[in-house]
Amino acid sequence: MQHSENAQGVEDVVWAPPRRFGPRSAPARRAILEAARARFAEDGYEKTTIRAVAADAGVDPAMVMRYYGSKADLFDATVRVASDLEDLTKVPREEIGRRFARAMLGRWERGENKPEAAALRAAPTHPEAARSVQRSFNEHVLPALRRAFPDDPDIETRAGLVLTQGIGTALLRYVLEIEPVASMDYETLIEAVGASIQRHLTAPLGSAA
Amino acid sequence: MQHSENAQGVEDVVWAPPRRFGPRSAPARRAILEAARARFAEDGYEKTTIRAVAADAGVDPAMVMRYYGSKADLFDATVRVASDLEDLTKVPREEIGRRFARAMLGRWERGENKPEAAALRAAPTHPEAARSVQRSFNEHVLPALRRAFPDDPDIETRAGLVLTQGIGTALLRYVLEIEPVASMDYETLIEAVGASIQRHLTAPLGSAA
Repeated sequence: MQHSENAQGVEDVVWAPPRRFGPRSAPARRAILEAARARFAEDGYEKTTIRAVAADAGVDPAMVMRYYGSKADLFDATVRVASDLEDLTKVPREEIGRRFARAMLGRWERGENKPEAAALRAAPTHPEAARSVQRSFNEHVLPALRRAFPDDPDIETRAGLVLTQGIGTALLRYVLEIEPVASMDYETLIEAVGASIQRHLTAPLGSAA
Repeated sequence: MQHSENAQGVEDVVWAPPRRFGPRSAPARRAILEAARARFAEDGYEKTTIRAVAADAGVDPAMVMRYYGSKADLFDATVRVASDLEDLTKVPREEIGRRFARAMLGRWERGENKPEAAALRAAPTHPEAARSVQRSFNEHVLPALRRAFPDDPDIETRAGLVLTQGIGTALLRYVLEIEPVASMDYETLIEAVGASIQRHLTAPLGSAA
């Protein structure tokens, strides 16, 4: 398991923009974040309120605002915290697609993806949730793939293509529950999606005519 | 351009569940459908009302209900009408993936996809919109691929995989506008997505361990 590091080199488990807080605030910030993850997952983006999160965490709403700035930033923090991608630099290149598929979809399959599910559910109608998807790509997906393919000048394009396959699968199987994707055998799905992601990572990219 | 046929063998351009109406009602039904497409596209699923659609079409709200049954059915009709997939049986097998990608994404690229965009935007939070995505798969995507691969017993699984890649691309590029997918060169995108779809259609399917 791996978390991205912020500019200060601090592990991104507890993240609060834009100010920094001392270690004494860590338990409160963690409690707020856990309460927010549960609320966003259960009630969705729109219905979740700072007041409800504060009550669940046993703190004053002003403290939520002080640590997280806004509902959008708090939401963003729940999604960032949840990202985990194994270190792909240690995986043989021809295995990276399958491993990436497993790392990304495994959390959904095990039901550990509530913040991402809330983000994906809210993204089409809430620009701040769509921005969380973009940040998750910029700060987790792209860096992990860049480290695995340091010499590929097209890695950003490739990572975008990887995301189309990965998010499309998560959306159809876990959020919209479209058949036959929703009940497809998981290993069959991982093989196919993993091979498609591998293709996006390593096959020649077509160019404009 | 091709439309699916319903059980009566009537072309599915004007569709009204569950009753059938005579040809005299066709202009009114068409006006309602056009008004509904515009409203759903502009205001989204939630904010669109039967009353507003009726006013736009210049008919009584009761007529909308009579012809389309409910807001959910009306929404569904706007999505079904918009589907068009060329006859893939005339395309060489090794070209079907790319052709399918072009047929599906071309409408989005040209901005002709408003009903699908409304459906995809509404689907994560409105089960009736998610059902429209499922019906569009069942009645357009799957039959088109079944006709192109009549002997493949796994075509339903394959078609589901095709949809993960196709909808993931549409969502990221056109609905969420996630970079670099949103501004990726269109031909590069079609090549990569088309090759991925081709893989889903023709590569060996992995099986469970």
